[in-house]
Amino acid sequence: MSIFDVAVWNNGVVRMLDQRLLPQEESYLEFASASEVAEAIRDMVVRGAPAIGCAAAFGVAVEAFRLARDGIPVSWSLAMAPGMERLRLARPTAVNLVWALERMRPLLEGEPALVPERLLAEAEQIRQEDIASCRVMGRLGAAILPRPQGRPLAIMTHCNAGALATAGYGTALGVIRAAVELYKDVVVFATETRPYLQGARLTAWELLRDGIDVTLMTDSMAGHAMSRGLIDVVVVGADRVAANGDAANKIGTYVHAVLARRHAIPFMVACPLSTIDRNAVSGAQIPIEERAPEEVTHCLGHRSAALGVKVFNPAFDVTPAELVSALITEQGVVHAPNTEKIRGLFGC
Amino acid sequence: MSIFDVAVWNNGVVRMLDQRLLPQEESYLEFASASEVAEAIRDMVVRGAPAIGCAAAFGVAVEAFRLARDGIPVSWSLAMAPGMERLRLARPTAVNLVWALERMRPLLEGEPALVPERLLAEAEQIRQEDIASCRVMGRLGAAILPRPQGRPLAIMTHCNAGALATAGYGTALGVIRAAVELYKDVVVFATETRPYLQGARLTAWELLRDGIDVTLMTDSMAGHAMSRGLIDVVVVGADRVAANGDAANKIGTYVHAVLARRHAIPFMVACPLSTIDRNAVSGAQIPIEERAPEEVTHCLGHRSAALGVKVFNPAFDVTPAELVSALITEQGVVHAPNTEKIRGLFGC
Repeated sequence: MSIFDVAVWNNGVVRMLDQRLLPQEESYLEFASASEVAEAIRDMVVRGAPAIGCAAAFGVAVEAFRLARDGIPVSWSLAMAPGMERLRLARPTAVNLVWALERMRPLLEGEPALVPERLLAEAEQIRQEDIASCRVMGRLGAAILPRPQGRPLAIMTHCNAGALATAGYGTALGVIRAAVELYKDVVVFATETRPYLQGARLTAWELLRDGIDVTLMTDSMAGHAMSRGLIDVVVVGADRVAANGDAANKIGTYVHAVLARRHAIPFMVACPLSTIDRNAVSGAQIPIEERAPEEVTHCLGHRSAALGVKVFNPAFDVTPAELVSALITEQGVVHAPNTEKIRGLFGC
Repeated sequence: MSIFDVAVWNNGVVRMLDQRLLPQEESYLEFASASEVAEAIRDMVVRGAPAIGCAAAFGVAVEAFRLARDGIPVSWSLAMAPGMERLRLARPTAVNLVWALERMRPLLEGEPALVPERLLAEAEQIRQEDIASCRVMGRLGAAILPRPQGRPLAIMTHCNAGALATAGYGTALGVIRAAVELYKDVVVFATETRPYLQGARLTAWELLRDGIDVTLMTDSMAGHAMSRGLIDVVVVGADRVAANGDAANKIGTYVHAVLARRHAIPFMVACPLSTIDRNAVSGAQIPIEERAPEEVTHCLGHRSAALGVKVFNPAFDVTPAELVSALITEQGVVHAPNTEKIRGLFGC
C-alpha cells in the first residue's frame, strides 16, 4: 500500500523521501550513519511519530554496519552509544523514537559478528509491525465512526498522520482509508497545519494520490466548519500519549478537541502502543518541543511577519484524556480513555 | 496618533496605504472614482470594518467630484447610483460599508452645486468620528481589563483591529494602546491569522512601530498558550455585530472565544456602533464572505498545497453573544451582551 519510501533500507543505507519538498517535488535522500539520520529527523526530512521510530531503528542499523567496516567493536554498546544518543536527542516529543532505540538496545549484547544483521532485521521488523498495526487500527477505527444517513461521512483531520507519518497506511489516515474502503461515501476536511503546513503539503497530497475526496482549510476554520454542521468526527494521530490518555499531538490538536466537545462531535486519537509512554503519568510530563521562530515569521521560507517580532512556537500541545472520545490502537479501541483502561491494553 | 494614511483625502483623490504590501513595503495608492475605491476594498488594499466604511465614504466623495467635472448632474441620486452600488457590493460582511453609504446618501438631495463638498465634509466627519470613537473605546475597554499582580497583563488579539483597520488608533488595538498608556506593563500575543496573515503582517508591524511588546504565534497555538496560563484576556474587533450581540469577525475568532470560555478567560469585542447591524436579529443573518481558494492553497502567493485539492475559505465566523464577556463601544461597555442591552446603547 505504501507508495512512498518514508524510511527504508536500501543497499546498505537508509533511504527516505524528503518530505520537506512535498508536494512540489518527490526527492529521495540516503543516509549512511546514525548522526546523518538524527539530523534528518531533526530537520524533518521524516516526521510523524511512528515514522520517526522506524527511521531511528534503521539509523541504529546503518550505524552498526558503518562501524563494522572498521572491524567488529569489542563492545557494541560502547561503540554505538554516541550514535544512539544523537538519535535520542533528535526530537523530544515523539516517544516512538525512544521506544525504537530501547527495542534495538538488547540486540547489541548478542554474538558480536551478527549484531549489524540482527539490528537490521529488528528495524525491518519494526517497520513491518508498524504497517500491520496501522491496518488493524484502520479497521478498528472505521468500525466506530458515526454513519450519517443520506450524506457522506465527513472526517476532519489535523497535520499528517498518514502513510507519510508511519511506515505506511497511516494512523488517522489509516482509519480514513479503511472508512473509504468500507463505506465509500467519505469526505475529508484537512487543516493546513501551520506553521509547517503538513496538512496542506502532505495530507492533501497523500489523500489526492489515493483518490480520496479532500477539502483543505486553514486551522482557524475548524470552528466555523463544525458550527455549520460540516464535520461528523475528528480523527488525529499522536506523538506521545501519557499513561492516563492525555495525548500530545501537533500544535492545534487541543483546539480541535475543545471545539469538537462544544459541538458534541466525537474526537478520536489513533496511535500504536509504541506511542503510549507509560512512564508519563499525565500530559504534564510530556516534553513539548519549541522550534525555530522562523517557522512562524515565515511561510514556506518567505517572510510574513514584521522584523523584530518575538515568537511563540510550540510544536505540540496536549489534549486532556477527558476530551478524547476514543483511543484507537492495534490492541483495541479504548472509549473515554483513562489510566485503568490503558493499563488493560498492555495486559497488565 | 495615526501614522498611516489608511484612507484619506489628498488633493482631490482618495489616498490609501497599500496594506497588501505590508510589512515589507510602505506604498501608497490613489483612487479617483467610486469603482476604483470599490476595487481597492475588494482586493484588500484597505481592510477592517471601520476603515472600509471610511474608504467607502471617501469613495462616494471622489465619485461626486469626478462627475461634477462634466457638469452638475440633474439628479445626484441617479448619477451616483452605479458608483454607490459598486461600493456596496465590494465586500459583504463588514456592515460599516453599508452604514457609511447610508449616511452619505441623504446629502445627495441638497443644493446640487454643493453636493461634492458636502459629501467630502461628511466623509471627513466619519473619519474624525471614527478616530474619536476608537479613543473612547480604548479608555472604556482598558478600564475593564483584568489586572494580574506581579506580572504583565497578557492580551491576546486576532487579525488586525488596529489603526490599520480604522481611521486611526484601532478598536481592539485601541484598547491595547490605552492599556499600555494606563498600565505600562502589557504584553500582546498576536495570532498570525491565516489565510491573509493580517496578524503577522499588520498587527505585529503596527504594535512594533508603537514600541508595544508583541509575540507572534500561529492561530493553532492559542489553545496551548491559554492552557499554559499565558493569556489573561482576549480582545478582538468585529466586522458586523447582530442586534443580539452575536459577532462576526475574522475567521478563527469563534475558535478563540470557545477556548477563552473553557479557560475562564474574558473575551471582549471592541467595535463602534457603526459595526452593529440592528437589522440582523442574530448572527445567522450575517452574510459570510467566501474568498478565493488561492488564499488557502498558497501562502504569500507561494503554493503550499497539492494541486487539485478542494478548498473551504470562509473569511469570517460568528461568535455567539453567550461567549462575549463584554462588547466595548464608544457609547459604553455592555457586559454579557443581549438584544435588550444593545438596544440601550442606541437609546431606544
